[in-house]
Amino acid sequence: MAGRPTIYDVAERAGVSKSLVSLVLNRSPSVSEASRLAVEEAIAALGYRPSRAAANLAARSTRLVGVLIDDYTNLWFVDLVRGLRTTLGEHGYRVTVADMATAPPTENPVEGFLSMRVEGVVVAMDVPAALSDPAAPPVVIAGTRRAAPPDADSVTNDDAVGARLAAEHLLSLGHRRLGHLTASGGAAVVRRASFVEAVERSGATVVTIEHDGPTDEQAGFDGAIALLETHPETTAIFAANDLMALGALGAARQLRRRVPEDLSIMGYDNTPLARTRLVDLTTIDDNSFAVGIEAGRLLLDRMNDADARTGAGAGATSDGHARATHRTLEPDLILRGTTGPAPAAAP
Amino acid sequence: MAGRPTIYDVAERAGVSKSLVSLVLNRSPSVSEASRLAVEEAIAALGYRPSRAAANLAARSTRLVGVLIDDYTNLWFVDLVRGLRTTLGEHGYRVTVADMATAPPTENPVEGFLSMRVEGVVVAMDVPAALSDPAAPPVVIAGTRRAAPPDADSVTNDDAVGARLAAEHLLSLGHRRLGHLTASGGAAVVRRASFVEAVERSGATVVTIEHDGPTDEQAGFDGAIALLETHPETTAIFAANDLMALGALGAARQLRRRVPEDLSIMGYDNTPLARTRLVDLTTIDDNSFAVGIEAGRLLLDRMNDADARTGAGAGATSDGHARATHRTLEPDLILRGTTGPAPAAAP
Repeated sequence: MAGRPTIYDVAERAGVSKSLVSLVLNRSPSVSEASRLAVEEAIAALGYRPSRAAANLAARSTRLVGVLIDDYTNLWFVDLVRGLRTTLGEHGYRVTVADMATAPPTENPVEGFLSMRVEGVVVAMDVPAALSDPAAPPVVIAGTRRAAPPDADSVTNDDAVGARLAAEHLLSLGHRRLGHLTASGGAAVVRRASFVEAVERSGATVVTIEHDGPTDEQAGFDGAIALLETHPETTAIFAANDLMALGALGAARQLRRRVPEDLSIMGYDNTPLARTRLVDLTTIDDNSFAVGIEAGRLLLDRMNDADARTGAGAGATSDGHARATHRTLEPDLILRGTTGPAPAAAP
Repeated sequence: MAGRPTIYDVAERAGVSKSLVSLVLNRSPSVSEASRLAVEEAIAALGYRPSRAAANLAARSTRLVGVLIDDYTNLWFVDLVRGLRTTLGEHGYRVTVADMATAPPTENPVEGFLSMRVEGVVVAMDVPAALSDPAAPPVVIAGTRRAAPPDADSVTNDDAVGARLAAEHLLSLGHRRLGHLTASGGAAVVRRASFVEAVERSGATVVTIEHDGPTDEQAGFDGAIALLETHPETTAIFAANDLMALGALGAARQLRRRVPEDLSIMGYDNTPLARTRLVDLTTIDDNSFAVGIEAGRLLLDRMNDADARTGAGAGATSDGHARATHRTLEPDLILRGTTGPAPAAAP
């Protein structure tokens, strides 16, 4: 072995992964006593010393992970954060959430995370350009997002499958005149394409109303009003998410269309709102708790890699880091009270 | 002037407040050029040097404020955070929000804020004991809270007035058999006392159902079911907050009581949920955006005081800091679709 020992040498001698060495160096509580002793013996035997950069990193470790979301009022993020905190909390990391909607126009939440020296970022919105900077901390994408850097890890439910489940559910209830409410955003684009394809393949028709802006309650309300005024024959609406479905339910109420007797409405996300007794929304569960668990795991790997890279010095870094991991989880149909059989055609 | 010059000497010579000197020392962008020059001249003329502690503080300034809430799913906090970010953002501070509901059992959000070295905390829940520690950063309480330290500043809407507005509204619609749904929590206690007093003073009757736990949708649903099964003569329900009112609306739906024809329901907070077309909830606006603006101002004052104290050294600190400021804002009645005239008595 020539030259100064690296973290790889320590890992080899201790018979563990370099990620585990990194955890020991960072005094992670998740390491077993036996592994810790093995790593410490290898460090002593080899005379390994972390580089200055790594030592600084360890000393200044913030153990903080930032989660970036669009809007606190879209409760999709709550189960995601619960999942992230479950995984990351076990490894001594804390989670902080920033949304764009309450930010003053002058404030850049990504810069905010950097100034807080977060050690990793979970992006649960279309990806801001600042996070593609090579100096940015490790990033994991949660959900289907536009502008996701190709080398970033990602975890998402399968939006194409979920939207197809929505179409199949409504078609199985006899609906033949469907509407779809959508807006901008990476996940909405995938859901729309899959829903429209599944409906048209069946021979039924679908009218899509695209709102130019966020996928919020107002978008769902405006879209449903426009849809039902121009296409009153519509008997079922699939909204791109639960918040838009809430707006569509408000539109149905205003137009005195009974749900589900006259009009079926379903959403996507299975948010806490969908589970309330008043809303009682048929929806697609995107399993955001499981997405959070898995995104937390991927981010831990990335953060440990980043530590290990610094510790090993330049030259030992060509391995692995550019290979992105993409996990896809299966969504589920959740049957509740807002969908029912298609009404008999008007005489 | 004997001994080493203090921040008070600088302030006096420059003809400004010590808070403004502190802002200059912290390179706040909110100081006018003229004030900055005056302070810098006074510093040079007196040979003032900030103490080591103050210099460290400035160098390590995180410009971060933590907001502590119960639960992301209670959207009450969104307007509060928007108000806080408006005030604090102007002074270069960022805001991070932590909730208790998604935290793993092992995690203490207060410790999390301390490890992130927040410079101030806004508490929008009953106050955790750790924040009464003298070493904790400055705290401002938002809302009526249990266990609030007596020397902490606070901003709240007037919960007693708000609950009285609710009672007067329902009484003016002819309701004489009222129900109130409440749970634990400082604000709920005040709202309950005021509501019950106003109803009983009028000669009408009120049945209170107290849920042992958080003021969430489930509490509202369970409470309303219990109320309506034991007291079916009830024609109007005031819930301690909008989320409990959402649960009560779900209970009314399940029991096939039409709202507002058979049963009026109102909440408190005027959350984004209350404003949606489906929920369309009559409620009390607690002006949480304005509470956030004002809480941000008080916290800025506290943080500047803390800086100035450190800079002036011990002995110059006896002034002012123990006097707490308590601001109370007027709430407003918001009329929407869930309240109406009392139904005619059954024959």
